[in-house]
Amino acid sequence: MNEEKRQLASAEQINKRLQSAQFPFNQFLGVRVVEAVDDGLTMETEVRPEWGNVFGSMHGGVTASLVDTAVGIAVIRGYDFARPVTTVELKVSYLRPIHAGKLTVKARILKQGKTLCVGVGDVFDQEGEHCATSLVTYMAL
Amino acid sequence: MNEEKRQLASAEQINKRLQSAQFPFNQFLGVRVVEAVDDGLTMETEVRPEWGNVFGSMHGGVTASLVDTAVGIAVIRGYDFARPVTTVELKVSYLRPIHAGKLTVKARILKQGKTLCVGVGDVFDQEGEHCATSLVTYMAL
Amino acid sequence: MNEEKRQLASAEQINKRLQSAQFPFNQFLGVRVVEAVDDGLTMETEVRPEWGNVFGSMHGGVTASLVDTAVGIAVIRGYDFARPVTTVELKVSYLRPIHAGKLTVKARILKQGKTLCVGVGDVFDQEGEHCATSLVTYMAL
Amino acid sequence: MNEEKRQLASAEQINKRLQSAQFPFNQFLGVRVVEAVDDGLTMETEVRPEWGNVFGSMHGGVTASLVDTAVGIAVIRGYDFARPVTTVELKVSYLRPIHAGKLTVKARILKQGKTLCVGVGDVFDQEGEHCATSLVTYMAL
Repeated sequence: MNEEKRQLASAEQINKRLQSAQFPFNQFLGVRVVEAVDDGLTMETEVRPEWGNVFGSMHGGVTASLVDTAVGIAVIRGYDFARPVTTVELKVSYLRPIHAGKLTVKARILKQGKTLCVGVGDVFDQEGEHCATSLVTYMAL
Repeated sequence: MNEEKRQLASAEQINKRLQSAQFPFNQFLGVRVVEAVDDGLTMETEVRPEWGNVFGSMHGGVTASLVDTAVGIAVIRGYDFARPVTTVELKVSYLRPIHAGKLTVKARILKQGKTLCVGVGDVFDQEGEHCATSLVTYMAL
Repeated sequence: MNEEKRQLASAEQINKRLQSAQFPFNQFLGVRVVEAVDDGLTMETEVRPEWGNVFGSMHGGVTASLVDTAVGIAVIRGYDFARPVTTVELKVSYLRPIHAGKLTVKARILKQGKTLCVGVGDVFDQEGEHCATSLVTYMAL
Repeated sequence: MNEEKRQLASAEQINKRLQSAQFPFNQFLGVRVVEAVDDGLTMETEVRPEWGNVFGSMHGGVTASLVDTAVGIAVIRGYDFARPVTTVELKVSYLRPIHAGKLTVKARILKQGKTLCVGVGDVFDQEGEHCATSLVTYMAL
């Protein structure tokens, strides 16, 4: 069990895979993995002006994209990048608006099953405020 | 009641507002309103290569962005563009993968309250297949 | 295709199965199928005093139970009662409080896949008001 | 801030309030508060035979009822029992089936706003296995 966990990809290894993959939307999101632990990982990015909604804060769809990306990559890593996965469903609760600066996106796997995976995705702003939380379900194909 | 409904903005009026507003992320989404009815509206866009995920289909975050945009604009229109709103939470169920072509996004308002609004957002592909459904909650500020 | 649809169980057949099955919580819910169509079914029940929350309206958990029951039975019927299913996740949006009288619960299947099923569950009160909507995902085992 | 937190009701005080209130559905759920901390509380109950679904495990609606109850009471306590609240929406992800024995339901408040509250509800079985997680939104009236 312990050994298996040690074999999960490191943050550096995940970033290399992301860079070499055809992953256009994630380039738009500008995410990079900064930490990888047994049951999840942490990503960082910077808020971009083109992510704004009509009221001047970050569009809720970008938040959804960030958690789907972080939890999805954590799930793929949990399968050692050996199985394609698809998002079954995603639920985001928005706790406070996001305006600018560095964002931290934490993904934690609650269940890595044979078919279904469930994870939590949380978004924190530069001040460490909890801006959004989410639950995301994936199916391994 | 009937008269009030007649006063809701038309598809053309909504598109004019969207074009004149500072709305950077929606330009990325390329959406335009093609129909507006009493309890909602229909948008169209085209799948773009930059929306792809690592497996070659459209990123789930883009689907979430499309439904948040369509239902959000339907809600803002329901308040006659007089109140800012914020997304409280969003839930998307992905029914089948999206690859290319024209997308139709239908928003239907279930509740337009004094404080909270709830709407359904559905995404259909070029063949008319139902690719995603969603429930989105907004708060008027 | 048409023939296959005709073979789905009728409302009467579903009720017989529910009565003969060990189904204790559904007896608590008092539900009976009143209509069954190609892509779903309609159930009815009566609000019971023991379903009340601390504020005198129906507990949100009962609403969740009703939609999980109706969509779940629609899904099981969609598999001709031949496969056990488990609820993967459930999301309910509460549109207005429920107090008393007859409730109508409509289940509509959006996707009946080999492994995953997604359905919509809606609850209407005696006056026909839309009190709750939901999306529920099931996995066939 | 510290003083305000110390004034939140203790587990014993919450249980007294629950017993004296008209709270019929919670009696059906058999829940009692066993711990109350600054940002949430823990409840316990025992699985009852009448909560079973057709496949012999606990009905998903009971899980939804338990998290709605625990997070809801944590929210009401956060307002010092001074404001009525209503469930806006609830999302449960089911991680593994529940069969029998003691259940632990943990509620943690992520946001206690002027109008909206968001909390996480988790259910663990007797072996400490994580059986369900949830996000629930409430509105103070």
